Amino acid sequence: MLTADRVGSTSISISLPVSTASYTDSSDDETSPRDKQQKNSKGNSDFCIKNIKQADFGRREIEIAEQEMPALMALRKRAQGEKPLAGAKVVGCTHITAQTAVLMETLAALGAQCRWAACNIYSTQNEVAAALAEGGFSVFAWKGESEDDFWWCIDRCVNLEGWQPNMILDDGGDLTHWIYKKYPNMFKKIKGIVEESVTGVHRLYQLSKAGKLCVPAMNVNDSVTKQKFDNLYCCRESILDGLKRTTDVMFGGKQVVVCGYGEVGKGCCAALKAMGSIVYVTEIDPICALQACMDGFRLVKLSEVIRQVDIVITCTGNKNVVVRDYLDRMKNGCIVCNMGHSNTEIDVASLRTPELTWERVRSQVDHVIWPDGKRIVLLAEGRLLNLSCSTVPTFVLSITATTQALALIELYNAPEGRYKQDVYLLPKKMDEYVASLHLPTFDAHLTELTDEQAKYLGLNKNGPFKPNYYR
Amino acid sequence: MLTADRVGSTSISISLPVSTASYTDSSDDETSPRDKQQKNSKGNSDFCIKNIKQADFGRREIEIAEQEMPALMALRKRAQGEKPLAGAKVVGCTHITAQTAVLMETLAALGAQCRWAACNIYSTQNEVAAALAEGGFSVFAWKGESEDDFWWCIDRCVNLEGWQPNMILDDGGDLTHWIYKKYPNMFKKIKGIVEESVTGVHRLYQLSKAGKLCVPAMNVNDSVTKQKFDNLYCCRESILDGLKRTTDVMFGGKQVVVCGYGEVGKGCCAALKAMGSIVYVTEIDPICALQACMDGFRLVKLSEVIRQVDIVITCTGNKNVVVRDYLDRMKNGCIVCNMGHSNTEIDVASLRTPELTWERVRSQVDHVIWPDGKRIVLLAEGRLLNLSCSTVPTFVLSITATTQALALIELYNAPEGRYKQDVYLLPKKMDEYVASLHLPTFDAHLTELTDEQAKYLGLNKNGPFKPNYYR
Amino acid sequence: MLTADRVGSTSISISLPVSTASYTDSSDDETSPRDKQQKNSKGNSDFCIKNIKQADFGRREIEIAEQEMPALMALRKRAQGEKPLAGAKVVGCTHITAQTAVLMETLAALGAQCRWAACNIYSTQNEVAAALAEGGFSVFAWKGESEDDFWWCIDRCVNLEGWQPNMILDDGGDLTHWIYKKYPNMFKKIKGIVEESVTGVHRLYQLSKAGKLCVPAMNVNDSVTKQKFDNLYCCRESILDGLKRTTDVMFGGKQVVVCGYGEVGKGCCAALKAMGSIVYVTEIDPICALQACMDGFRLVKLSEVIRQVDIVITCTGNKNVVVRDYLDRMKNGCIVCNMGHSNTEIDVASLRTPELTWERVRSQVDHVIWPDGKRIVLLAEGRLLNLSCSTVPTFVLSITATTQALALIELYNAPEGRYKQDVYLLPKKMDEYVASLHLPTFDAHLTELTDEQAKYLGLNKNGPFKPNYYR
Amino acid sequence: MLTADRVGSTSISISLPVSTASYTDSSDDETSPRDKQQKNSKGNSDFCIKNIKQADFGRREIEIAEQEMPALMALRKRAQGEKPLAGAKVVGCTHITAQTAVLMETLAALGAQCRWAACNIYSTQNEVAAALAEGGFSVFAWKGESEDDFWWCIDRCVNLEGWQPNMILDDGGDLTHWIYKKYPNMFKKIKGIVEESVTGVHRLYQLSKAGKLCVPAMNVNDSVTKQKFDNLYCCRESILDGLKRTTDVMFGGKQVVVCGYGEVGKGCCAALKAMGSIVYVTEIDPICALQACMDGFRLVKLSEVIRQVDIVITCTGNKNVVVRDYLDRMKNGCIVCNMGHSNTEIDVASLRTPELTWERVRSQVDHVIWPDGKRIVLLAEGRLLNLSCSTVPTFVLSITATTQALALIELYNAPEGRYKQDVYLLPKKMDEYVASLHLPTFDAHLTELTDEQAKYLGLNKNGPFKPNYYR
Repeated sequence: MLTADRVGSTSISISLPVSTASYTDSSDDETSPRDKQQKNSKGNSDFCIKNIKQADFGRREIEIAEQEMPALMALRKRAQGEKPLAGAKVVGCTHITAQTAVLMETLAALGAQCRWAACNIYSTQNEVAAALAEGGFSVFAWKGESEDDFWWCIDRCVNLEGWQPNMILDDGGDLTHWIYKKYPNMFKKIKGIVEESVTGVHRLYQLSKAGKLCVPAMNVNDSVTKQKFDNLYCCRESILDGLKRTTDVMFGGKQVVVCGYGEVGKGCCAALKAMGSIVYVTEIDPICALQACMDGFRLVKLSEVIRQVDIVITCTGNKNVVVRDYLDRMKNGCIVCNMGHSNTEIDVASLRTPELTWERVRSQVDHVIWPDGKRIVLLAEGRLLNLSCSTVPTFVLSITATTQALALIELYNAPEGRYKQDVYLLPKKMDEYVASLHLPTFDAHLTELTDEQAKYLGLNKNGPFKPNYYR
Repeated sequence: MLTADRVGSTSISISLPVSTASYTDSSDDETSPRDKQQKNSKGNSDFCIKNIKQADFGRREIEIAEQEMPALMALRKRAQGEKPLAGAKVVGCTHITAQTAVLMETLAALGAQCRWAACNIYSTQNEVAAALAEGGFSVFAWKGESEDDFWWCIDRCVNLEGWQPNMILDDGGDLTHWIYKKYPNMFKKIKGIVEESVTGVHRLYQLSKAGKLCVPAMNVNDSVTKQKFDNLYCCRESILDGLKRTTDVMFGGKQVVVCGYGEVGKGCCAALKAMGSIVYVTEIDPICALQACMDGFRLVKLSEVIRQVDIVITCTGNKNVVVRDYLDRMKNGCIVCNMGHSNTEIDVASLRTPELTWERVRSQVDHVIWPDGKRIVLLAEGRLLNLSCSTVPTFVLSITATTQALALIELYNAPEGRYKQDVYLLPKKMDEYVASLHLPTFDAHLTELTDEQAKYLGLNKNGPFKPNYYR
Repeated sequence: MLTADRVGSTSISISLPVSTASYTDSSDDETSPRDKQQKNSKGNSDFCIKNIKQADFGRREIEIAEQEMPALMALRKRAQGEKPLAGAKVVGCTHITAQTAVLMETLAALGAQCRWAACNIYSTQNEVAAALAEGGFSVFAWKGESEDDFWWCIDRCVNLEGWQPNMILDDGGDLTHWIYKKYPNMFKKIKGIVEESVTGVHRLYQLSKAGKLCVPAMNVNDSVTKQKFDNLYCCRESILDGLKRTTDVMFGGKQVVVCGYGEVGKGCCAALKAMGSIVYVTEIDPICALQACMDGFRLVKLSEVIRQVDIVITCTGNKNVVVRDYLDRMKNGCIVCNMGHSNTEIDVASLRTPELTWERVRSQVDHVIWPDGKRIVLLAEGRLLNLSCSTVPTFVLSITATTQALALIELYNAPEGRYKQDVYLLPKKMDEYVASLHLPTFDAHLTELTDEQAKYLGLNKNGPFKPNYYR
Repeated sequence: MLTADRVGSTSISISLPVSTASYTDSSDDETSPRDKQQKNSKGNSDFCIKNIKQADFGRREIEIAEQEMPALMALRKRAQGEKPLAGAKVVGCTHITAQTAVLMETLAALGAQCRWAACNIYSTQNEVAAALAEGGFSVFAWKGESEDDFWWCIDRCVNLEGWQPNMILDDGGDLTHWIYKKYPNMFKKIKGIVEESVTGVHRLYQLSKAGKLCVPAMNVNDSVTKQKFDNLYCCRESILDGLKRTTDVMFGGKQVVVCGYGEVGKGCCAALKAMGSIVYVTEIDPICALQACMDGFRLVKLSEVIRQVDIVITCTGNKNVVVRDYLDRMKNGCIVCNMGHSNTEIDVASLRTPELTWERVRSQVDHVIWPDGKRIVLLAEGRLLNLSCSTVPTFVLSITATTQALALIELYNAPEGRYKQDVYLLPKKMDEYVASLHLPTFDAHLTELTDEQAKYLGLNKNGPFKPNYYR
């Protein structure tokens, strides 16, 4: 599954959030950034981006994002005196957006030097990259890279005479993979890897199992805050948003089948039930299945309801969940989309056959038409609906970015021996700290334990309050 | 309130549904349609629209709409044999969209002749108007009419040598007003008015009270199906959609105040509560107030929560609900929008003062900036969010259009004396019939009374099943 | 349906609220109250109740009820000065409970004289009746009357030398029926009837239609507050309570069919959906059917789901909704109950056949056992679950009692000619007043219209705020 | 917290489920069971219970429970051939109810010998104990034991000439404690401990930390199925049930504060929100706090809302959460109850002062009256509302009992060395198996992975499907 030839493909399938599209759709000149000579206002040219002139517009985007990322701003304030990342040389590979920029500028404020590439060939906000380059960051990324560009940019981040990274911040594992492949010696100086994505974490566990992981790695993806907020709460909103923006469908009374009842599926089901849809669930795991039952959803096999449903949503993390046979049996007008993972869940390739006609009716919306006139409404060509057709709230990104920053600080400052060559979850206490930094947004007032209560519970008054496995 | 000088202004404030915007944003030539000479393919030129060449594109839009308006299509089939509108000459003034086109073509199929103008200067889908003109309808409408154009179009519908309407289908009352003002004698031949909007219905009741209503009128606005579906169910979805499309705001944990707990307010509150917002309600009517309490919302005065809320939504039908004093007290980043009625609820005019800066950040989204840097996010300049920033599901429009068609049939065929010069609600049985035509969409199976049960309940087996006042 | 021989039977089928059962189950002596001589402490003996010695206990119950009926207490205060019922001689026939006692003592405080009988042979709280008798009220009622007792009590209320009622407060129509039958001349002095129940209102409309109604009558049953609060909100809670107390069933994951989607059905469905049940709905009325669809319930015929459901709930107001054929097809352990009306909805008589075994497993719970061992769990023998097996919140009773008091005041004080010999709904403004008296319970703060807003809306600042047909 | 002098006290505070009360309230003779000579029909007298004559009634209760515990019945069938517990000598200490009886008889069917005592002095269903004794089980338990009886019964289970247990099934840790204290040598033959309760598990971890745990122990309490089903889903229903049965309170519009947002708090909040209450939450853990925010609850300190709420519910597992100072500030009529743990959360002792009057108004309901007349409604004297005032659904007990049985089988059959002297969670795969055994109840159909999908996910087709920490 994770052999070299697939490297990069997972990320490549993720396309650009809708709302940012407008800013970067502008048809600039067609010259490749690799062929341009650009300098920022201070004469620095150690970057490669679309157009440095968009820096002002990008700066405004960053400022707007700052307003909704209070935790990072607080981190800047609290930790600035002591510069916990002084001496850190961070090489990063993530989506390059206004929110990432706030993270990068926070890392810099904490003392780090940063070099950055994009983890996805489509998702870079060009004007944000421009603002970062103008601000002195070595950024190598633009919207619409080729695969060759993609690896070239990563290489430019890492391969610099006289500079060697000592921390990695990765989203998808491609940067880590590149260093393993091309510059394995670099790991001697690297103190740790912070990885954000399911795919990247999976790769790290494979390396660890194979005894090939040579530095500690922090699995940010499985931190409670990320799981619950990014998946459950975020998808609860984005499923509605993604479906509305693409199809204007009315939810009331619609029959929907949701494949998979993990956090994402739970979020989707809760939202659609609340809007008056009738929701069916499919599951392979009996525990999640029982939860679906208790939450009021009929647990079925897909074949039982495929002829009657109006909407099919995949959230399994699996492949070939909706195969051609099911697509053949769907009724006219059925909407099919993927909220799960990558672009594997719906067997879209099986629809590329001569007897079926494809009609692009809107951006991200295709009608696939059967010989008898039946139409299936396929969204985002089976890629992730929430990334392709809705936006991710800055608040959720703030939680993830703060977690990444704390993970970097922890790994960079950990005393020798605290972390071995293994994959770690963020210490519970840090998870709790991330959460606490986001409470003021809701004007939420935490209760403090009395000494007597702390003693009774056997807890430190400042946490951690739950065992690590608590969700 | 409803004096002549305001005529037209209510409708004018309603802007175009978002999703259709794309089709009509194309920058055609700038010549006024009134100055063009156009003919359809059969040589007919009794229409005035933007561009007859867009007819094919419009036809496709109409065909798509037909698929989601099964009730009108069923009506065409069922009633076609007998042509219940044979001899009817309908003059209409409504939004001109694909859904209206399905209605007009249904009326034609039932035997009616139709002449049509737009009830709103912005809302016409030009390509749909073209398809109608190509199909032989006398349509006078385009997107972006001036006020003078607006009345000119209406006049062209009505004032035709050798043709006189005998039925009026109005949305807002402007067409009715024009005939009263210019051609009062026409009412001698007119069998009735069907009016769709709150405003138009209000005008009719005023006329009736003043003894000036000279034909029967059917109040379609207050039919149960319209009230419950258009307001409650539709707004339950469009409040989320409108807020997301304009601001990408995350709903979870947000504090929201909803002004007014009628059907619209009930829909908004239910949706936001389901998405994890904390919702406060203001009300003037103690009964609705008590409902809000029982539904789990704190009933407050606006002043009690104005400093703490993240979102303010008006749904009152009233004016000056959110005045400058409240806007001054809102916190930074507060979103303000109107789901209620017209553009009166938020005192937007009070924000047009020199010390405040307006910044247009997206289509339909303004930041209003106070001297201290505080920003208020004002949506659609206080006009209706659901019309401006989200789409109305075709299914809901189908219910209304079917009701309009049935009201025309009823008034046109009613025996002498059934209806006097007064305003009527659609007979309950017809309301029920409209509903029944929409059940197959949900694969819903109605139960039939046995003879014994019908007798026990004192009901006819075919309805009506409830008293007229039942909601 | 409403012929004389059925008179009384509807009410008789309503049994006692559970929570009050304890107070009156005490096995007093077996002497019929009609054979006892009792006096209160002031020597008065114009009453007939179980046991005057229970008065103190009853007084405490009344005092507890007073705390939760703030509207009536407010009415006592506000209207006491002017005694709007001075001179009123009210004869009443209702359930005799602590809440009724608060109503009666309020009427007295407003100036009325009261004589009272029970509308149900089982529902009288003996100690409350004792407290009322001790307080000087002429009460004729006890728990466990025979049908002969029932009419005897009513007659004793009405038929008193030298006293003639001028107002009737009825619940079920039996008192009204008795006066029509025995003392038609009394109507000459009677200013009006206030009727509370569906059945009683139905009878009044029949009389009116037949031209036999000889005084104005107020239909309290159809007031908005009654409909929404008594039916929707109250049943939302009592369906859960009634099922739990009788069967301890877990709701999560259960499949339930609710027959009828009026206010009661809406309340039941909302509650069960919220608790994780999968709910199906049956309906005869297409409008309610469409509402069920939009609210997220599959609309089915009972036969489609009868084999698979765990719980069957009737809320139709109809008869023979669940017939033997359906009972035969239910699965083992299926729970069957009635939330609708009377005891007609489930054909319980059809289960009284020799091949079926009945087993009483708890109070109000029977197992009906088929020859193959299948058991159906029948609750309250098909009578109303919410009356038999749960309690009605005092708050809801407070709304109804306040409405009754205001209706009496309105009819008693109405100027000649305002009300004809017809059935009236309570004026909207009074409905609103009742609601407003209940808002302080929720610390709810009503917004007041400004003069400008009232003018804009064409409303009086004090209401009424909605047309009479608004729900 | 867990010193010897408190042993037993936790359990002692748990009182009897309401619905079973009726069966055991019967005022048998007053002779202590310890002074009686009883034999079952086969002449066996190795038991000590209230009254062997109640065996038939108890057998019927057990048979009813069997119908709702399909997983244990399936286990009997599937595992009976191989007798996986052949040779097992299980000593148990749990609540003795019909559901426990089904578990015990399942263990026996799987080959085990069982001796049993009660873990609580009040909770034994005497007639069930009788049926077990009649069936040949050595049961030592009755409702209303003294503390001396409690330990005597445990001792009788353990201390038998010629018989020595090799497995322990404990609920609360008292049995384990007794063996540690009195018969430490027994541990040489004991293969493992299965512990069910929070308290008992806490004790085991203390022992383990102190290096004193001398056999493997299985922590059943923290298995996913137990946590989610027993806490979240069960409390979602029992909070409503417990409040209604004790107070008949109407939930709609009530202001409620829930202290603690763990699984129990989440269940309580979801239920009350669904019923129309306005819910506030207090928390000490920032992660749970953020979840409360996203779920739509205002996060407050108790002091902020204590004056305004109608209901206070504790679910923290902590002590002195509601102290006298808060009780002093509550408003008249405020209901106070505990859903959390033991009887520590509300400082009930602080209410036992001379100036306050206690009035018992119903079973489990006290009015505590302040000098100024203010009344607080205290439920179950601060003990667990769900155990005291509502019933636990058999379905939930079935999940726990099945988990206990599987844990015994696992420990008894584990190869040497799989488990060390430590506390273990049940292997994920067994958790999943327990869940799968309960799906048929909901007619739920699990999806199976294809070979290709299993390979893609790197999973065995039969599970486990999730990492151990997944919740």
